[in-house]
Amino acid sequence: MNPNLGTCYGIGVGPGDPELITLKAKRLIENADVIAYPATQTGESMARQIASQYIKESVHEYPIKIDMSSNAVQLDDAYAVAATAINKFLEKGQNVAVLCEGDPFFYGSFIYIFSKLKTTYHVEVVPGVSSIMACGAVSQQPLTSHNDILKVIPATLDKDRIKHQLDHQGTTAIIKLGRHFQKVKGLLDELDLLDCASYIERATLPNQKQMPLTNHDSGKAPYFSMILVNPSWKQINE
Amino acid sequence: MNPNLGTCYGIGVGPGDPELITLKAKRLIENADVIAYPATQTGESMARQIASQYIKESVHEYPIKIDMSSNAVQLDDAYAVAATAINKFLEKGQNVAVLCEGDPFFYGSFIYIFSKLKTTYHVEVVPGVSSIMACGAVSQQPLTSHNDILKVIPATLDKDRIKHQLDHQGTTAIIKLGRHFQKVKGLLDELDLLDCASYIERATLPNQKQMPLTNHDSGKAPYFSMILVNPSWKQINE
Repeated sequence: MNPNLGTCYGIGVGPGDPELITLKAKRLIENADVIAYPATQTGESMARQIASQYIKESVHEYPIKIDMSSNAVQLDDAYAVAATAINKFLEKGQNVAVLCEGDPFFYGSFIYIFSKLKTTYHVEVVPGVSSIMACGAVSQQPLTSHNDILKVIPATLDKDRIKHQLDHQGTTAIIKLGRHFQKVKGLLDELDLLDCASYIERATLPNQKQMPLTNHDSGKAPYFSMILVNPSWKQINE
Repeated sequence: MNPNLGTCYGIGVGPGDPELITLKAKRLIENADVIAYPATQTGESMARQIASQYIKESVHEYPIKIDMSSNAVQLDDAYAVAATAINKFLEKGQNVAVLCEGDPFFYGSFIYIFSKLKTTYHVEVVPGVSSIMACGAVSQQPLTSHNDILKVIPATLDKDRIKHQLDHQGTTAIIKLGRHFQKVKGLLDELDLLDCASYIERATLPNQKQMPLTNHDSGKAPYFSMILVNPSWKQINE
């Protein structure tokens, strides 16, 4: 690759607490020529908020505005526009830091950008603390030891597929709850796993909540929430 | 709990690169009264090595010496001795930072210590960057997006149990390869998944290696290695 091109860094900024950013992420954010991040149409960005104290006032910012109601094709189009904009910075020899909640390659929108840049530009991924590990820490619930299996399952899958994956001894993290919360809670009840489940939302942020799932009775959960469940945690509420 | 007691921090120091320590971990290591870490009988400690530049010369160090050939009962005994030693520091009001490779609750030996201290002392877990995310970053292989499932499976499980878990669309991380490497490689061959697998060892350390699994022909793998496999990565070697 042309050595005069800039580098695109996909930077994991961790689960929410700005102190859970890595030293490498901090250094790259402080030294970047351009900071890009996913944002709503009105400009709000959780990734930017997490990293805000490390962003220099003088840096060029490029919000990647995403309409959250987009379908897959529209999302891909929006990221294609962003990738083209990032290309222009890289062609000028500027380094671009793309901020990503949690880890860039773990359900991160950075994957869209990466797939569009990887063959032409130098792209480096800086791993971050994932929400899975943050939720284990916040709920004081060890995730896995010895020969345990860990599974991460999006709640957006249909009930039968989720049920099929709950057939093992080990820990399952059911993520992206949002409007799928009642479906998941109902399934865990059906499988007699309610007493073995912990509910966590916005882990490590000032407004975090965590409780045994049986204590969660509002019937609602935000997108940034998850259930950790393990058949051996029967004692969770005792 | 007695406010005069110290706090025990289980601190994830990340996958290997000292720059992948979080700002919170660095602060707590720099300010701890006692630094504890798992070590071999001869005193070598990967966790300590990762964090070494943040450990003050004047701090009290407590290596938790573990014989790697120990069985489960012997390990539990060794951690009981360590927990008793840590208790004494906490009783004196000292804060103890227990260093953990990767994340403390993700296959971490800190889980033993935690289980012995949690009812009597204040224990806080500081999540770290996991080797799973580090291996995704190093191999430039996005782990999961959209509705993908992620599974983490120890290679120490018997072949049939591993096979049973490879029944899905999504990414599987097969960890703790070591002497189980050939068993796992053989199984992936049998399932026609060899071409969809990436091999990574010592991710983010200076001696890291990563390659398509089909290029790995020594027949050997260290304990700190993993295979990432996803049926949709058929193009990995193309």
